[in-house]
Amino acid sequence: MTRTAVVLLSGGLDSATVLAIARSEGFEVIALSFRYGQRHVVEIIAAQTMARSAGVLRHVIVDIDLRVFGASALTSEIAVPKGRSPNEISHGIPITYVPARNTIFLSYAVALAEVSMADNIYLGVNALDYSGYPDCRPEYIEAFEQMANLATKAGVEGRHLTIHTPLMHQTKGEIITRGTKLGVDYSATLSCYDPDVGGASCGLCDSCQLRLRGFLEAGLTDPVRYCARAAT
Amino acid sequence: MTRTAVVLLSGGLDSATVLAIARSEGFEVIALSFRYGQRHVVEIIAAQTMARSAGVLRHVIVDIDLRVFGASALTSEIAVPKGRSPNEISHGIPITYVPARNTIFLSYAVALAEVSMADNIYLGVNALDYSGYPDCRPEYIEAFEQMANLATKAGVEGRHLTIHTPLMHQTKGEIITRGTKLGVDYSATLSCYDPDVGGASCGLCDSCQLRLRGFLEAGLTDPVRYCARAAT
Repeated sequence: MTRTAVVLLSGGLDSATVLAIARSEGFEVIALSFRYGQRHVVEIIAAQTMARSAGVLRHVIVDIDLRVFGASALTSEIAVPKGRSPNEISHGIPITYVPARNTIFLSYAVALAEVSMADNIYLGVNALDYSGYPDCRPEYIEAFEQMANLATKAGVEGRHLTIHTPLMHQTKGEIITRGTKLGVDYSATLSCYDPDVGGASCGLCDSCQLRLRGFLEAGLTDPVRYCARAAT
Repeated sequence: MTRTAVVLLSGGLDSATVLAIARSEGFEVIALSFRYGQRHVVEIIAAQTMARSAGVLRHVIVDIDLRVFGASALTSEIAVPKGRSPNEISHGIPITYVPARNTIFLSYAVALAEVSMADNIYLGVNALDYSGYPDCRPEYIEAFEQMANLATKAGVEGRHLTIHTPLMHQTKGEIITRGTKLGVDYSATLSCYDPDVGGASCGLCDSCQLRLRGFLEAGLTDPVRYCARAAT
């Protein structure tokens, strides 16, 4: 097994924590980020800052155009929902779901892992404290790993690719507590689906609300700036 | 089940045949092609001609940059092998293998199928007459289908996405015979990994050799132009 891992790095809180976990588990890291027509492209700047301060081997930023597929509030002109209740957030598939996004992202990660001789991929998905994306569930990740090991030359040659999802069953509060212990600087992360031009978070979208409740649960103060603050 | 299918259309002989098969099985077709830094971008022109003459609902061409992953003769400066024997062609994974290519292509197809409410994807992979790509094997396709049905909102809502690979167990000769019966115009297809600037095929790369032997097997003459002709 090589000690190199590809870490999917979005610039958000979860992937920043996953990067720190991969480093703490002894991996040299190749970070992989995507520009995919998302509104919150400022995430990429956050990802670059993170990758630099973590001392990654390489940071690959791939341009992909998910806009051709339309139909998501994260990539099209549909409004991002604001001020939804915890119950609304935790049920059903939200409008911010991007069709097959994790599948496309993981496919690039598999390609990058193969050419880099890396047998490990880290991904910050979360089934527990998350809002109903089908491609964040453990059964999906298991099926993807199985497929990936049949897809590649590395797999045929008997090497095994492992997809690590260390946050899968953790609450947002637990993630923040764990990351804080590992020295993650959360002021450099961005979670908001709809930040303002200065990079301040809205405080009202599902992602901001989950983040704010996570800091509350961890007994810590969120260091990022907010334009508004949700009633949590 | 919807009667719309996404057909992966490379501009080659196999995908042209698959497009005709999907139409003959009663599907309205959304064609999907990729520009991925391949040497043989003239394939895209062939795909456009095919899509038009087949009367597809829509032809989506996605720009993706596989060059960041390097390490393949199809996308980098490594020379395309020429004049290999049938035995060399049919054994091992060739240098023209692009890491995780079908996985990335199929992932985009899943996204396009989902936003188009299509429950069917057609792909022209072939395990029999092909030269050792791991992501052309039936066990890979089965694993991908299983994963895709866990990845999407459609899957969660109980719809089933099927990946059709009608050429999987056919020889190149059988494919050509079948396509000819369905009226495929093979003069509009391109298989060569290394065509000249005028679009003529080299006749010597693995793909040209497989194609030429296929026409020989079918008892037909290949209508495309060659710069050189392999000894078949």
